[in-house]
Amino acid sequence: MTRTIDAVDFFFLAMPVIEPVADGSQDALLVRVQAGDAVGWGECESSPLPTIAALVTPMSHSACHPVSASVLGQPIERPEDILRIHQAVRENSLDLLQADHALSGIDVALWDLLGQVRGEPVYRLLGEPRAYPKIPYASVLFGETPAETYTKAKTIRAQGFRAAKFGWGSFGRGSVQEDADLLAAAREGLGAEGILLVDAGTVWGHDVASAQARMDALRAQRVTWLEEPFYTGALEAYQALAGSGGVALAAGEGAHNEDHAQHLIDYGRVGYIQIDTGRIGGITSARRVVLHAQRRGVQYVNHTFTSALALSASLQPYVGIEAFELCEYPTELKPLARDLASAPLLPDADGMLRIPDAPGLGLEPNLETVRRYLQDVEMRVQGRVVYKTPAI
Amino acid sequence: MTRTIDAVDFFFLAMPVIEPVADGSQDALLVRVQAGDAVGWGECESSPLPTIAALVTPMSHSACHPVSASVLGQPIERPEDILRIHQAVRENSLDLLQADHALSGIDVALWDLLGQVRGEPVYRLLGEPRAYPKIPYASVLFGETPAETYTKAKTIRAQGFRAAKFGWGSFGRGSVQEDADLLAAAREGLGAEGILLVDAGTVWGHDVASAQARMDALRAQRVTWLEEPFYTGALEAYQALAGSGGVALAAGEGAHNEDHAQHLIDYGRVGYIQIDTGRIGGITSARRVVLHAQRRGVQYVNHTFTSALALSASLQPYVGIEAFELCEYPTELKPLARDLASAPLLPDADGMLRIPDAPGLGLEPNLETVRRYLQDVEMRVQGRVVYKTPAI
Repeated sequence: MTRTIDAVDFFFLAMPVIEPVADGSQDALLVRVQAGDAVGWGECESSPLPTIAALVTPMSHSACHPVSASVLGQPIERPEDILRIHQAVRENSLDLLQADHALSGIDVALWDLLGQVRGEPVYRLLGEPRAYPKIPYASVLFGETPAETYTKAKTIRAQGFRAAKFGWGSFGRGSVQEDADLLAAAREGLGAEGILLVDAGTVWGHDVASAQARMDALRAQRVTWLEEPFYTGALEAYQALAGSGGVALAAGEGAHNEDHAQHLIDYGRVGYIQIDTGRIGGITSARRVVLHAQRRGVQYVNHTFTSALALSASLQPYVGIEAFELCEYPTELKPLARDLASAPLLPDADGMLRIPDAPGLGLEPNLETVRRYLQDVEMRVQGRVVYKTPAI
Repeated sequence: MTRTIDAVDFFFLAMPVIEPVADGSQDALLVRVQAGDAVGWGECESSPLPTIAALVTPMSHSACHPVSASVLGQPIERPEDILRIHQAVRENSLDLLQADHALSGIDVALWDLLGQVRGEPVYRLLGEPRAYPKIPYASVLFGETPAETYTKAKTIRAQGFRAAKFGWGSFGRGSVQEDADLLAAAREGLGAEGILLVDAGTVWGHDVASAQARMDALRAQRVTWLEEPFYTGALEAYQALAGSGGVALAAGEGAHNEDHAQHLIDYGRVGYIQIDTGRIGGITSARRVVLHAQRRGVQYVNHTFTSALALSASLQPYVGIEAFELCEYPTELKPLARDLASAPLLPDADGMLRIPDAPGLGLEPNLETVRRYLQDVEMRVQGRVVYKTPAI
């Protein structure tokens, strides 16, 4: 008997207090897909209410269906089924902007489910015979001051990390000298041998000159990449800055489909393409970017600032490719994200990160954590309930 | 005393029955902005529930605020205030994908409001001294058969239109010969002098060869443009097809920010850039594309398949530029969209379309129509009502 998708459920989790800082681990949108007795889990890295609404909104016209319409009732037996469902969502929800984020978590859950059914890790379903260890870089926010940044870097080094990324905060918002001081503090704390990465958090929008003004300081501290100096769509700005030499550029976390990522590589000339599986359209879309990056000789790296479940989902698409060496590893997670997976994903004694050799994502959510942070959501149209958080 | 924004309200309207056809006039998302005693109206061309959720969703982190957070309480006295609010939404809701669609209707309503306060049409607030008449093209779906398409074309011609666009339906899904027959029927019905436009509705995805196979038939019927052979993001495909000569390409309705539109011009080499003010980020974003199209010598044209209110909003950004001659004019609207504005926007006796010389958009919604099709929406998080359709 063919297994078909019986249910797609979204669970909105949130910390009791959400602060206006660049910490994406303060809430989560967990996805559960059920097909017969098989269950798969995923996460959307997205704003919870619009994403839930994308799942259940009434149809507007033939190119604006709710995402659920292309998923529920579909057969799910082999990878081709996921590709077909993925394509159906893209076509049937063409005009529903938020659909890409909703699709992302569903696609991850479908790969997890299929891995459970087949008894295989996702990367093997993708055709990779083995998983390679990655160098995890500790991903943190800049300290408020150089001194605070220095302490953060020193702590990261003491924890055994060989690489660290500092981002957001005041970087790029003050003077060039202030930024140079932050960078020098990070380098000093991390040590001469450490891999130092910097995330500007789109602070300069489309403004090439402001980014250019920091290049000397970035080069002086041997920064491996400058991440997101501009908006995801500012291809001309990326191209101009990349052409000016010096430090490699990194971007892609804002890409909500594979076209965007490809353009950052082909037109924006980034050296590192950073993909969040929870935004780009899931593992299916991420895998396409992996293959494109390989063709172009560009480094692929995950974007992850949330749970171990999301981390595993973001690693699966490229863990089979040895040449892609780095992986983002969030180290300042809120309890919600820290405790969301059934087990943490920790670097091994050699400082390298390995994903579990287990079916699907190799991890599942801790339902106690889910229940602790669960936010009950209800949406009604004309009094009719179109979404209600299910019991878990 | 400075006028500040007191309220932003979204109203979801829908026909009693929504059919799975490519007719975007079956529902609507109306926006009302209030600042003191001034009121402005706009429309989002988007899926209603996710867009309402984008307005009110709880904050996830500093780059994922609800759209309302950047709008409510803001001073609104001059065009610079709209630019500032627009930029704030883009920054504060960077990771909220659906925010662009929510912003679109709000931005339109803000320009309308400012026009009311100043007693000026929006195009004059944009710096254009006068509005030029446009050649409206009747925008319809292909008939199911060549005979039906012929009849549609003949009717359009009898109505006095000099231009017509046929789109979607079976075009591109069957054989090349079937498409050629549809095109020949459209040309025959429209007459030798008529401007014939074709909309492929993204049917070929990224597949250049399938589009290329139709080029002879398109050229044979002297089609002025082939619209959306590919997805909005398929820049390489657009570039390849544009480079192959023959018929000019048109695209842009899927653009949800000005970067996308710019890339279709600069990388995709379209000859016509088509912008929906209700999706790209409103009149503010559309105006930037107008200026970019002027610099590049590309024709700007509106995308509108809904009400006269949306049509006025889509015309304002380019009505002041004489060289941009065409305008999309939907002629098969459902009653909801047909009756939404206080008055229709009809071509004059000379067949040309002129927008009202009146403050703001020059039109307002017919509240009787709004009440007739209004869908009551309620969203709750942890029992707390975060959105409830207000009385109107």
